[in-house]
Amino acid sequence: MPSAAFQDSYPDDVSHCYGCGRLNPHGLKIKSYWEGEEAVCRFAPQPYHTAIPGYVYGGLIASLIDCHSTGTASAAATIRQEYESGHRGSAARFLTASLHVNYLKPAPISETLEVRATIKEIKDRKVVIASRLIAGGEECATGEVVAIQVPEHLMPR
Amino acid sequence: MPSAAFQDSYPDDVSHCYGCGRLNPHGLKIKSYWEGEEAVCRFAPQPYHTAIPGYVYGGLIASLIDCHSTGTASAAATIRQEYESGHRGSAARFLTASLHVNYLKPAPISETLEVRATIKEIKDRKVVIASRLIAGGEECATGEVVAIQVPEHLMPR
Repeated sequence: MPSAAFQDSYPDDVSHCYGCGRLNPHGLKIKSYWEGEEAVCRFAPQPYHTAIPGYVYGGLIASLIDCHSTGTASAAATIRQEYESGHRGSAARFLTASLHVNYLKPAPISETLEVRATIKEIKDRKVVIASRLIAGGEECATGEVVAIQVPEHLMPR
Repeated sequence: MPSAAFQDSYPDDVSHCYGCGRLNPHGLKIKSYWEGEEAVCRFAPQPYHTAIPGYVYGGLIASLIDCHSTGTASAAATIRQEYESGHRGSAARFLTASLHVNYLKPAPISETLEVRATIKEIKDRKVVIASRLIAGGEECATGEVVAIQVPEHLMPR
């Protein structure tokens, strides 16, 4: 039985993201979990998530890499903050400062997409995450996201 | 009265893209037009296209930049091919080889988003497009897309 997804620990008032908010009824509800050193997200595209016929829309791939990476940044930063402070806190919420996706080959829409992410750098409020998107056993895209912890003035009050 | 959108000239069998296909009933139906040297797309986000409350989901911004850029690549390449051949052809369809988005500031969800793109390079089957996303008069993101004309073996038969 898997543990709770990273996104399920976000406070309610920042859980409406179209990509990963559990409280957005229209959204993709992307979920991320640790598997050892890697964070993994799996997503089954709908038939309408198409680009050219038979293949997944690149904007969906970018969205998966984006939300999975900010989720991974949150999970990693929360662990570090808890370790340093010695007590449990609520999950830190991250925004994307930059997103880079290389599309290596078209991803078949009939396959479940798997994004596997690792932490490249974690420093103060910044986390850099590298990821690979795999479909049908083949690496179809790679991503790099620079994520920044949401500044206080942008958090809901 | 504006001329037809770039995406409206795609052949029917490659017009189902979730981002910009006019024949995808679930999709975003992104539309792009020339305004002088720039290609422009405007999109009014829905309330559910949110990230943190009040601001636009970054994956939607990536999707707009992606489809607007491949559309701009198609329009520019088609003009060039028609010029070189001396006769009208059907619109060339492009895929994204790489997508890079820098998020400069959160885009308010109440504003219409405008993406303005220019051609940085056009060579053989490759087009590089730079873009800016503007909301409420402020530049909220920049993008760069490397687009490649869809290889014959990936086109529907």
